[in-house]
Amino acid sequence: MTSSSAAPSTNVVRVAVLGCGNVGGALVEMIEDRSAEIEARTGISLEIAGVAVSDVARERKVGIARTLITTDAIGLATRDDVDVVVEVMGGIDPARSVVEAALLEGRPVVTANKALLAFAGGELAEIASANHVDLLYEAAVASAIPVVRPLRESLAGEHIERVMGIVNGTTNFILTRMDEDDEEYETALAEAQRLGLAERDPSADVGGDDAASKAAILASLAFGCDVNGTDVHREGITGVRAVDVEFARKLGYVVKLLAIAELLDGGPSISVRVHPAMVPRTHPLASVRGAFNAVFVEGDGCGELMFYGPGAGGAAAASAVLGDVIDAARNLSAGTFGPQPRRAPMEVWPREELRSAFYMSVEVVDRPGVLASVATVFGKNGVSIRVMEQVGLGSEARLIFLTHVAREGDVAATLVELGNLDVVDRVGGVLRVVGDE
Amino acid sequence: MTSSSAAPSTNVVRVAVLGCGNVGGALVEMIEDRSAEIEARTGISLEIAGVAVSDVARERKVGIARTLITTDAIGLATRDDVDVVVEVMGGIDPARSVVEAALLEGRPVVTANKALLAFAGGELAEIASANHVDLLYEAAVASAIPVVRPLRESLAGEHIERVMGIVNGTTNFILTRMDEDDEEYETALAEAQRLGLAERDPSADVGGDDAASKAAILASLAFGCDVNGTDVHREGITGVRAVDVEFARKLGYVVKLLAIAELLDGGPSISVRVHPAMVPRTHPLASVRGAFNAVFVEGDGCGELMFYGPGAGGAAAASAVLGDVIDAARNLSAGTFGPQPRRAPMEVWPREELRSAFYMSVEVVDRPGVLASVATVFGKNGVSIRVMEQVGLGSEARLIFLTHVAREGDVAATLVELGNLDVVDRVGGVLRVVGDE
Repeated sequence: MTSSSAAPSTNVVRVAVLGCGNVGGALVEMIEDRSAEIEARTGISLEIAGVAVSDVARERKVGIARTLITTDAIGLATRDDVDVVVEVMGGIDPARSVVEAALLEGRPVVTANKALLAFAGGELAEIASANHVDLLYEAAVASAIPVVRPLRESLAGEHIERVMGIVNGTTNFILTRMDEDDEEYETALAEAQRLGLAERDPSADVGGDDAASKAAILASLAFGCDVNGTDVHREGITGVRAVDVEFARKLGYVVKLLAIAELLDGGPSISVRVHPAMVPRTHPLASVRGAFNAVFVEGDGCGELMFYGPGAGGAAAASAVLGDVIDAARNLSAGTFGPQPRRAPMEVWPREELRSAFYMSVEVVDRPGVLASVATVFGKNGVSIRVMEQVGLGSEARLIFLTHVAREGDVAATLVELGNLDVVDRVGGVLRVVGDE
Repeated sequence: MTSSSAAPSTNVVRVAVLGCGNVGGALVEMIEDRSAEIEARTGISLEIAGVAVSDVARERKVGIARTLITTDAIGLATRDDVDVVVEVMGGIDPARSVVEAALLEGRPVVTANKALLAFAGGELAEIASANHVDLLYEAAVASAIPVVRPLRESLAGEHIERVMGIVNGTTNFILTRMDEDDEEYETALAEAQRLGLAERDPSADVGGDDAASKAAILASLAFGCDVNGTDVHREGITGVRAVDVEFARKLGYVVKLLAIAELLDGGPSISVRVHPAMVPRTHPLASVRGAFNAVFVEGDGCGELMFYGPGAGGAAAASAVLGDVIDAARNLSAGTFGPQPRRAPMEVWPREELRSAFYMSVEVVDRPGVLASVATVFGKNGVSIRVMEQVGLGSEARLIFLTHVAREGDVAATLVELGNLDVVDRVGGVLRVVGDE
């Protein structure tokens, strides 16, 4: 096999697909439908070598020849007639051992498995490098949106300062409904579940775990370091109330769940975290609505870039997987493989030392002197108030604050003390203000 | 030299920079500033082998050792100690012969030269393939925004249906001023010139030539075909009036100059064109303001993607060039090169056969029966009116129309006939409505 030359030649590349859910099924269909078009454009003829499933008997939307189906994922991934392995099983086990086995056998692996990469991406990248094969994972962050390859390649010479992503479609759908239709969180969640955009148990999405895995992958790509998903601080959207979203809107902001990876003081310290934030309506991320995703990148040469597209759906993820399969196939033909980003140790800053402006809402007893007690707590902790507004009356009274830029540790101390005040019923929504700098 | 392996090794890669204007100067500075960071992340140590300029004596912002400077671009590009050639001279001659000479000598070439690629991209790609070297040009479309590599690689397996780009920062700045500050075209242009965002002779930008070159490059990438920039139909923004922009706003649209490449009837016919258009305010392209650029891609698997970022500036373009240089250097180390997209012949549809909804404003004599005469012309040509509004009175009277979807040829005939009516003083702004489908 030779790489492309003046006289076009065709290479047959056989693909093993491990997992046949939404993404795997869409991929098999896409490879069959588009093989002629792909061959005309790239000279690569893709063939399905086999499909590994957990249950052979299960009914599938895609028709796959019975002879192609197996339950032995490792056996298929390491078979001699397989050129490229696609892992779309999801989860850490047994995906991890299957991917390792394939890489050790010298098979390039394409995976869409964010949990696996956030948990063991560094080790897998080392195995891939040591065995001179590709490990590609465009679909693991923001689905069909090309963001992994641009960070790895296009921006390889860029000094990236911050990456902020709306990387979870479920929570963005919920927050969009709350913003556009004044819905409460519970109503918007129920709507997302009705539309199939949220799981029956939505905790991985609304609690920020899914976004935290993606934040870890983005940080490793942007800063060439090894961040484990379990170390990423996360706050979900379950505490965000309609009143918070409405107040944000009045102030010219929209509430978004952001995955943030940023270099502190020019590096090598970084912060990687997931939390809801108030984003100015004029910021490009503010226009990302519904189940869409976007990743916003700031660098000192490239300026502000944004990558936008659908965050979910089998066909979208399959499209990203297919791009990686073609890349791996081209590299195989050329007898080469793409380098893994080198990973240097980075110090992850304790969250207490981070600084940002904060929004918070505090439910209080409506009687004279309340504001003075509350304001005293802010002052004592060195948190300066920029805007205060009282909403409602009597038992429904609520004080809403926007602070100047403050240390996270000081704000946390303020929140604890506020919660201990007799006149405070409950400390409600807490949102960082992002993108105003 | 070997490709990356378990034990990191360093490759020295020597870069010849042809041209030392804004982009070349910024690139030389960036390579010097970041060489340690780039080496740590990629194992590639970049060195400037030489810089070709047209005038050695000219004062430059960047300090470059006199011994590195030459006026012999071809000599430098083909020198034995040069590994990668960067062409940032601009223009077609002598850039074309220099790039050809470098490729024929087996030197990978990185270029930011949209005019050259739109004019001779197909031939240069063939020379690169025949000589087994890279020809990379991320900076040629939308500057620092990674869009060329995503189209070439990430979306290699995608069935792309349409690409629409805001790819000229000057015109987007002018149209944004007209929209946000109700300025007339001339005022906004003068402001752009004052800020250095428009040339003293702005015709290449405002007339659509610059966007037409980029449309040709985008079409070749999206559809794997060979489109010459000179064949791209273009209409600029010089005919767009404040009243058109205001009316668009009232209807929920914003006016943008778009470079459009689309597949017709599923292919292989395409249309490639540049014209101002009314875009719904809810469309992602509507939020692209000022001198920013964005490319919106629609495909049947990936759905709707958008790539957003700065469209101009030396550092932004240099950042994109640097990413390509690192890519070429990695490929060199691995003894390989990236494939050029194969180019198949495509039929470019005559514009008359295209269909879209239209906005047009017609200055008329304000007397009874005028609307009937005008409406008769629309009807006779089979163009159906969706919205009509009369603006102003007396000698300032103006009829504004929004049509249903109509054939371009029928609309052109309508415009000619309207211009011949006694009651019509002038046919003013004509805008297609895009993104409503």
